[in-house]
Amino acid sequence: MEELIQMIRRGDRAALARAISLVEDGAPGSRELVRAAYRTPRNSRVIGITGAPGVGKSSLVDGIVDQLRSAGRSVAVIAVDPSSPFTGGAILGDRVRMKRRTTDPQVFFRSLASRGHLGGLTRATGDVLTLVGVAGFDDVLVETVGAGQSEVDVMKYASTVLVVLTPGLGDSVQTLKAGILEIGDVFVVNKADLPGADRTGAELEMMLDMRPQGGWRPPVIKTVATSGVGLDELARAIDAHYEYLKSSGNLKTRVRNRFLASIEDYLKREMVDKVLKAASTSGELERCLAALEAGEDDPASVASRLAARYLTAGPCSPLVRSEG
Amino acid sequence: MEELIQMIRRGDRAALARAISLVEDGAPGSRELVRAAYRTPRNSRVIGITGAPGVGKSSLVDGIVDQLRSAGRSVAVIAVDPSSPFTGGAILGDRVRMKRRTTDPQVFFRSLASRGHLGGLTRATGDVLTLVGVAGFDDVLVETVGAGQSEVDVMKYASTVLVVLTPGLGDSVQTLKAGILEIGDVFVVNKADLPGADRTGAELEMMLDMRPQGGWRPPVIKTVATSGVGLDELARAIDAHYEYLKSSGNLKTRVRNRFLASIEDYLKREMVDKVLKAASTSGELERCLAALEAGEDDPASVASRLAARYLTAGPCSPLVRSEG
Repeated sequence: MEELIQMIRRGDRAALARAISLVEDGAPGSRELVRAAYRTPRNSRVIGITGAPGVGKSSLVDGIVDQLRSAGRSVAVIAVDPSSPFTGGAILGDRVRMKRRTTDPQVFFRSLASRGHLGGLTRATGDVLTLVGVAGFDDVLVETVGAGQSEVDVMKYASTVLVVLTPGLGDSVQTLKAGILEIGDVFVVNKADLPGADRTGAELEMMLDMRPQGGWRPPVIKTVATSGVGLDELARAIDAHYEYLKSSGNLKTRVRNRFLASIEDYLKREMVDKVLKAASTSGELERCLAALEAGEDDPASVASRLAARYLTAGPCSPLVRSEG
Repeated sequence: MEELIQMIRRGDRAALARAISLVEDGAPGSRELVRAAYRTPRNSRVIGITGAPGVGKSSLVDGIVDQLRSAGRSVAVIAVDPSSPFTGGAILGDRVRMKRRTTDPQVFFRSLASRGHLGGLTRATGDVLTLVGVAGFDDVLVETVGAGQSEVDVMKYASTVLVVLTPGLGDSVQTLKAGILEIGDVFVVNKADLPGADRTGAELEMMLDMRPQGGWRPPVIKTVATSGVGLDELARAIDAHYEYLKSSGNLKTRVRNRFLASIEDYLKREMVDKVLKAASTSGELERCLAALEAGEDDPASVASRLAARYLTAGPCSPLVRSEG
């Protein structure tokens, strides 16, 4: 695994693709791979792009890639596609888009399909982004389809988040999901040649004015990705936000929050799984479920009791013991 | 709180509305309220309705309410609307739809806004559905906007899940999110008077044929909710699925899974929060974050160590002690 990491570091794209597949599949050894990746220097700028289906994210990402390549930067694109495993949307998109990019060795494109578990996908995304960072790309674009909680979670891994909308009711400001307005660093009104673009832009500006003031004020940029309109302005906004993050010290905070989110994610899986398994083995869980069915208990109380039983406190804690 | 529960049981709608607000806000006493609700008999049939924005869920829900009312059943509608707190979508929808229903005392409508945290909303939804169950409605419809992970989570609280699509590319079968196809008990192609309805229906049938066979085969029903087309067929499908759940014993399984999901949700919050807090207080977390920044550690390893330190095992476990 250490060798695979070294191959990725030296720019071996096939090794990177193989490593990503291992992590995506949760294959044996993938955990060691991720461990090694986290212990290897990484300096990529991570840019997140999110928005509802149909706002033209793929074209926009392609346009941003062109802009970054013109500036001499290498780019990796990770498309997180939570399509149903039955439809295989990710693979389809991959093939179409790969074709456009295979000629340029400084561009890497990969989509991650969910295999049914969005939570797992979010976790895998953090690990995959770390692997891509090891490969030394100047920029990593992470693109999500849709705008639900899983997309908000994925965006935690980005330093700069672009939220993409289009003019018109279906994707208007009114339909922005909880948390999306809050996480946007740059707002993009794509397909700005459609009627209503000015109104959507104005609505966004109004919403943004209602955000707590101070620090970075997200710009609203109109683009027509398919014809390249506004892409240079968008690239400048991305640069400006990154400069702001660095000069304000917020870049360090974002990296920390990303680590914290990742720890939290792993903790959830590990602890909750262990406790439920232990409670199941001991028969405790069965008794709790029966009591719930009989209307003699409630889930919050059950969880409190289980947490109290399986969490150490005071003298029994190995942490305290190891330090005392 | 016990008194409030008794008022809800006697059919006091104002008391129910007040109780829901308490739970939604996480107000003092709301936990006791929920505890009491879980210990009170409830027999409502819970029907979930999910689908992307624009598929006509509101009209469809209104149509289903009409069907259920014609059959003499009382109905509560809980609309889970994760719109941004900045846009207040939920409140707007509430006002418009409330007006249509205020004349019928056997219909209760309430929307839940997210206040920024989708995870919290999912949790609150389970508690609110329990409160509504105490009020004795024959049917509770729970409607979510969008089709992300949080929507899938909310649908865990339903016995019968309707997945709504429309003809056309934007909302076609290809764009169905992970997990949505898997949780649907009845599929609805709404706006079936639009071009492409037959194709969308056929695609769905094909996808459903790929699901593991045996048990319930979800029907695909075409509706035009605004003109009432297909609603009687839909109501029959809902009844048929519920009969299937009862006769197969799967209703009990679903109720159990719902309790389990709720326990898991509370456990996550309680344990992860406690461990992170303890690790933060002890300075351990700060050391871990510094090591991560220096590339000397990785999040999965940090989480494993924290879990091992704060989870009891063997002789220290009060659970084992209380039974030994």
